[in-house]
Amino acid sequence: MQRPRIKLVLAEAALETVPREIWGHPAVYKTAKRRGKTPASILLDRSLHHQAMKGLPEAEKRGRPDIVHISLLEALSSPLNREGLLETYVHTIGDYAIFIKPETRLPRNYNRFVGLIEQLFEIGRVPPEGEPLLTLKPMSLRVLLETIQPTKIILLAEDGEPRRLREIAIELAREVAPAVIVGAFPHGDFRPENKKLADGIYSIYGGKPLETWTVVSHLLAILADHLGIV
Amino acid sequence: MQRPRIKLVLAEAALETVPREIWGHPAVYKTAKRRGKTPASILLDRSLHHQAMKGLPEAEKRGRPDIVHISLLEALSSPLNREGLLETYVHTIGDYAIFIKPETRLPRNYNRFVGLIEQLFEIGRVPPEGEPLLTLKPMSLRVLLETIQPTKIILLAEDGEPRRLREIAIELAREVAPAVIVGAFPHGDFRPENKKLADGIYSIYGGKPLETWTVVSHLLAILADHLGIV
Repeated sequence: MQRPRIKLVLAEAALETVPREIWGHPAVYKTAKRRGKTPASILLDRSLHHQAMKGLPEAEKRGRPDIVHISLLEALSSPLNREGLLETYVHTIGDYAIFIKPETRLPRNYNRFVGLIEQLFEIGRVPPEGEPLLTLKPMSLRVLLETIQPTKIILLAEDGEPRRLREIAIELAREVAPAVIVGAFPHGDFRPENKKLADGIYSIYGGKPLETWTVVSHLLAILADHLGIV
Repeated sequence: MQRPRIKLVLAEAALETVPREIWGHPAVYKTAKRRGKTPASILLDRSLHHQAMKGLPEAEKRGRPDIVHISLLEALSSPLNREGLLETYVHTIGDYAIFIKPETRLPRNYNRFVGLIEQLFEIGRVPPEGEPLLTLKPMSLRVLLETIQPTKIILLAEDGEPRRLREIAIELAREVAPAVIVGAFPHGDFRPENKKLADGIYSIYGGKPLETWTVVSHLLAILADHLGIV
């Protein structure tokens, strides 16, 4: 069987540094100070900044670094990735793209992951010296997709066409380099301009929402099964 | 198709409060004090207590609450669990069993999860009032299995008989109430007395180690596919 190289894109991810509007909020100031950092350099995190986030636009979609953390751990630890058949990208809600070397071993500990992503937002690469494992660039989802040049683009969303995960895996595996886009935000919908980029939009669980990490792990598992890897 | 009820057991989990031998270690004392807790009441965490853990027996298997956290998030968020076909248990390296109501919504944030498990170790149940979602009891893996009475016991380990995940799913789905045991420790092997409890020991990835959450998510995904849920 031809072995595709799957391009997994976590899109509109709830991953950003604290926005300027709330730098002065006591909840932000306090968490920054405790860590010896400036409000501008720490990640927005609903578990710490819930009160401060109330007035932010699209607040319900923001401030959840844990979604990207767990989803990336699933992607990078997956047999599919270990067999060299996966590329993983993050597009953030603030229109940054993160390029991740497949051999990257992310911190398992959440607080260390947060520190690493803060460094990434500060200097654009991690580690600072030598070959970078993670690289950050300002980039819309459209430009990210133009850059990675998938042969087909599938987006998973609750309001998509109902489709079994296995059928999606078969469709992806027929391609040389397909992209699959999974939303990495806690609530709400994709932006219309991003949804338009897909060749097909599918729903895998009867229109009910699933956690991002569940979608990622289940898709990669069914793909690995289909390709005979597990 | 008959719908089995799968009993997932995360075993010998690297989840415990700081052991007495290292209560006085500066790294332990410092992290306890910063959180306004006693050394006895905080979780052992390698990301904080690495230095202090050096002399502990079985140190390489201990102090990784993140493994249980991510694996439980995968289990409880899975379509299999949401369809009512999964029961999830944790057996810890210190021989405690954690009983988890399937509808439990665990904290997504690691630090909040740690606080919740510390409360569980302190008072034996969470939440403290009303119907408990999590219950903790001193219990060996053997007694836990006697308590939950599976119709068959499959254990997954690197040195097991090679078996495709799909074949394991088919074997499990033939049973009414099978248990599947996954190690929730970072390195090393199961204790011999625990391994002996299994009817079958299988290896799913060519004898190579996988992260606990990867094993859990991939097994649950293949089961959900086999049962027509996703």
